Amino acid sequence: MAETMENIGYYNGTFAPIEKLMLPALDRGVYFGDGVYEALRVEQHRFFALNEHLARFRASLAFLRIDFPLTDEALTAILQEAADRVDSDSQQLYFQVTRGTAMRTHSFPEHASANLMILSRAVPLADLSEYRRVTVLPDTRWGHCNIKSLNLIPSVLAAQAAKERGCSEAVFHRDGIVSECSSSNLLMLKNGVLHTAPADERILPGVTRAHFLMLAGRLNIPVEETAFSLAQMMDADELMITSTSVHGVPVGFVDDAPVCGRDSARLRRLQKAYRDYFWDELGIAARV
Amino acid sequence: MAETMENIGYYNGTFAPIEKLMLPALDRGVYFGDGVYEALRVEQHRFFALNEHLARFRASLAFLRIDFPLTDEALTAILQEAADRVDSDSQQLYFQVTRGTAMRTHSFPEHASANLMILSRAVPLADLSEYRRVTVLPDTRWGHCNIKSLNLIPSVLAAQAAKERGCSEAVFHRDGIVSECSSSNLLMLKNGVLHTAPADERILPGVTRAHFLMLAGRLNIPVEETAFSLAQMMDADELMITSTSVHGVPVGFVDDAPVCGRDSARLRRLQKAYRDYFWDELGIAARV
Repeated sequence: MAETMENIGYYNGTFAPIEKLMLPALDRGVYFGDGVYEALRVEQHRFFALNEHLARFRASLAFLRIDFPLTDEALTAILQEAADRVDSDSQQLYFQVTRGTAMRTHSFPEHASANLMILSRAVPLADLSEYRRVTVLPDTRWGHCNIKSLNLIPSVLAAQAAKERGCSEAVFHRDGIVSECSSSNLLMLKNGVLHTAPADERILPGVTRAHFLMLAGRLNIPVEETAFSLAQMMDADELMITSTSVHGVPVGFVDDAPVCGRDSARLRRLQKAYRDYFWDELGIAARV
Repeated sequence: MAETMENIGYYNGTFAPIEKLMLPALDRGVYFGDGVYEALRVEQHRFFALNEHLARFRASLAFLRIDFPLTDEALTAILQEAADRVDSDSQQLYFQVTRGTAMRTHSFPEHASANLMILSRAVPLADLSEYRRVTVLPDTRWGHCNIKSLNLIPSVLAAQAAKERGCSEAVFHRDGIVSECSSSNLLMLKNGVLHTAPADERILPGVTRAHFLMLAGRLNIPVEETAFSLAQMMDADELMITSTSVHGVPVGFVDDAPVCGRDSARLRRLQKAYRDYFWDELGIAARV
């Protein structure tokens, strides 16, 4: 095996440190964002929920009609080689596929083949103990938020607005109905029921979100996949942010207004169930 | 002056043939589409409507809150150098600016500076004589279509759908109200009045569109900046597509349905007024 490094980049067969990785200007990702991506947790060089991520990746490719020739097995071998080249026992591995490399014309190029890029580096799992602050923004994204595409300007602007307001995340809403956050899903506990927006075109179908709903079932916590309003959010018993690296972080403030903290026992049970499931699936003795 | 070439690429100070131009994988354009662009007509190495394009470029930068340090004068000097390196007397020069180069995190990087990329090559002006075919698609883009951003997947998918249906363009509509086309504006003549959607957040404020409206005034053709419906479109006297390289191409079919052709004299007067204006502004004896 190659010597391990602090991080690794990969582009169409070539490995390099992320900071030195180059790609052609004519990659359609560069000027159209014409591609899709996934982000995977890699603990002790093992992938968590790889099959779920690959299934969503294939769905994103299908929506964009990108012909990606590698099988899941062949792709996994490359992802594994990338992860193995990084020292860290706790990585986030990002990969993206774009439609190909060609002169800039909107319609699909006739003879281009898809480009695969990978970036992997140490990223810690989010701390779950502290209640975080979120802000609220109108959701002005396109009509296919279920697709994990490279067109991410709305999420960039929202993440920056959140940061400037001293918040961990921005909650998106359309006409007062909550969809999700800028790069995570939002779950609500109210009267013992776990609520979250349905997995339609308004949200990304988060892998962690789906696991939380499954685990709620195991814990006999009823699940309601119906979008809730901003007013309901302000009156939540608990709110949790979920993503690949954020395993149910609690929300304690919406801007300056204190919220939640009224069902912490159930919140902690869900968090623990998730972390147990996470380490169990990885086949690693739990560390929390 | 350097030897001229078939095309030219530029990235942050380095010139190379477009096909050989490279950029870092960590340019935020690559994984977020976090940038804006413009496309300029360059005839005999002179820019058309440069000030209008630069003004729109600055508006796009401001919306994305990208700090681009070059003055218009300094930027123009680089654009001119790029154009001068290309043989062709009829180029389209594309340039994009992204927020910077940094590890992938949604919020803005603290210490990154903007990246400038230029691609220029021969692109002929569209032929204006023949009536073209368009198709119709729902407009599922984001809420800020007035921003010329690099998040262009909806336009890519629409252009491809149009091509597969044997059409030159796709007309977007929201609930039956026409906004614009996938990479151009749509103007309608009806009962001697020139109609087009208002320059709000649902369309790109096309430079060519604005010139057509100005020239219609000179020709005593009344202008109505109100969005029209698909039904009104099917009953148009004439329809014209406008963009930087498409100076009022007429539409004769919406999919298989024949439309228009009922006010060709006024259509041709507008086209001619535009082409005269175009060459006059460039200070070049007209060639049509």
